[in-house]
Amino acid sequence: MKKFLNRVDDVIPESLAGFTAAHADIVQLGEEGKFVRRRALKPGKVALVSGGGSGHEPLHAGFVGHGMLDAACPGAVFTSPTPDQMEAAARTVDTGAGVLYIVKNYEGDVMNFEMAAELAQGEVARVLTDDDVAVERSTWSTGRRGVAGTLVVERIVGAAAENGQTLKQCRVLGERVNQATRSLGVALTSCTIPAAGKPTFEIDDAEMEFGVGIHGEPGRRRVPLVPAREIAQQMAEAIGSDFGSARGACLLLVNGFGGTPSMELYLMYENLRAQFEKQGFSIARSLVGNYVTSLEMAGCSATITRLDDELARLWDAPVHTAALRWGM
Amino acid sequence: MKKFLNRVDDVIPESLAGFTAAHADIVQLGEEGKFVRRRALKPGKVALVSGGGSGHEPLHAGFVGHGMLDAACPGAVFTSPTPDQMEAAARTVDTGAGVLYIVKNYEGDVMNFEMAAELAQGEVARVLTDDDVAVERSTWSTGRRGVAGTLVVERIVGAAAENGQTLKQCRVLGERVNQATRSLGVALTSCTIPAAGKPTFEIDDAEMEFGVGIHGEPGRRRVPLVPAREIAQQMAEAIGSDFGSARGACLLLVNGFGGTPSMELYLMYENLRAQFEKQGFSIARSLVGNYVTSLEMAGCSATITRLDDELARLWDAPVHTAALRWGM
Repeated sequence: MKKFLNRVDDVIPESLAGFTAAHADIVQLGEEGKFVRRRALKPGKVALVSGGGSGHEPLHAGFVGHGMLDAACPGAVFTSPTPDQMEAAARTVDTGAGVLYIVKNYEGDVMNFEMAAELAQGEVARVLTDDDVAVERSTWSTGRRGVAGTLVVERIVGAAAENGQTLKQCRVLGERVNQATRSLGVALTSCTIPAAGKPTFEIDDAEMEFGVGIHGEPGRRRVPLVPAREIAQQMAEAIGSDFGSARGACLLLVNGFGGTPSMELYLMYENLRAQFEKQGFSIARSLVGNYVTSLEMAGCSATITRLDDELARLWDAPVHTAALRWGM
Repeated sequence: MKKFLNRVDDVIPESLAGFTAAHADIVQLGEEGKFVRRRALKPGKVALVSGGGSGHEPLHAGFVGHGMLDAACPGAVFTSPTPDQMEAAARTVDTGAGVLYIVKNYEGDVMNFEMAAELAQGEVARVLTDDDVAVERSTWSTGRRGVAGTLVVERIVGAAAENGQTLKQCRVLGERVNQATRSLGVALTSCTIPAAGKPTFEIDDAEMEFGVGIHGEPGRRRVPLVPAREIAQQMAEAIGSDFGSARGACLLLVNGFGGTPSMELYLMYENLRAQFEKQGFSIARSLVGNYVTSLEMAGCSATITRLDDELARLWDAPVHTAALRWGM
């Protein structure tokens, strides 16, 4: 394992200390380091809280700020945060309009956020994200996994909350965005969890994992590495067919898993764009970069969110976080 | 070699097509794909043109936009662009106030930008960046190499140009920023140039390259991989001693080389911050992320720019590019 670290147990606290120091204008560390919170809360706004295992940065702490999350709870690497963390975050950032938890569909996360909801004093609601079309059940989840589409839910619901929508409106909107969103990922290499010290999985030099999860968990199939155009075609077909006949304007998010350089991500964007357009999608918004990662895994995912005018407007609304910024 | 690509020869044009499509609100491809230019030019503003070998993305094309560059010329991977590209870019974006070339100190780049300057019709000037304290001479350069500090020069001079400073003022400012800037990089793994198909260098599992260049070229020494705190200490000492007794307010840029995850970059930021503060620097501004990369190389660099009030104000001024955005 070749990583920048001191003690394995200190990786996350040291990294969070650096993150909150580097972005002190936007965020601060919550009580006992249990969560990252927005520095300036907005009284009367629905509070958005997310979280999950670490290792997917900038998700979720990089999305705390104006127009997105109010708090993010980081667990150990690829391990759910505790109900205690989530409850503390919710209690801190709830300014009276209630708390919406945005939860990726993994068994640990779902269970812990449910326990946190039971502990809550104020009003809480939940949106579950399950945008990964790769598998219907995996080693980590019952039902589909929540992956890069979670960013889209956080961004669009974050804009709605900023605009004064109620807890119920935010929940309904979040469910609508999740239903309008589909993702699929491909891995070329594994990642290495610091505490494990060795790669999560082995993969041959000439192979890729089609439909990989964001923890390096298996996808649909282990297949030969083919040219980018063919990979893009297979990804677009898997996503497109899952949408049935629904087409139209959409957001295309090409998300790097951490170890794939920008040059290849934009090349994949170019190839994916062509394939989705061939299928009848019209790419109205784009985002390309490392947003929902798996440590240093090489690979990428494609996410399509079908946009109507309301969703496009909310996507475009001002956002100011460590990892996403526009309009202000 | 495991990369997303079709034909090796098409990697850069396909990637540029994706980049300019994804950021069509900010940039467009110049004539015959020779350069990436700002979509909306500002008449009467000094035009800033940079460029260099590809593989360092988002440098330079990701920094084209308001408050930074007017055009960027991408060469083949780790290969200087041609004088023809630079001349075409300058001709296109010069709106009457002249062109400032920002050139990293590598022999190929210096020679080709000089030839481009000779071809130029309008007024041109040049700022050379040589912020890497690692070596005084390398396989690629006579004198110090230009590395991540180039971003700081592009940002600060970009703000000054936006504010209406003259070509001479911009050149003098650029030289001042370069002189106030020092960097040092450390690599844990090599990168693989697509056309080469194999890693640029071999490195043991327990080693790091201290003082590595952004093409994977050798640095000061090949040494055992030590804890992050010790790496940070060695980096801060190399940079601090090069500043002599000059200390005070500074920008700290912790730059990822492409393959190191965000979690480790923020951990390194935390450790570097502590070491630089111990040396007497006061960290007034921070930037952490993959900005001047070496494809998928694992590693990072630290850059310190000593800031006075003017430089801090220009750093903070609005910028709107694919890779850096704030204040608008």
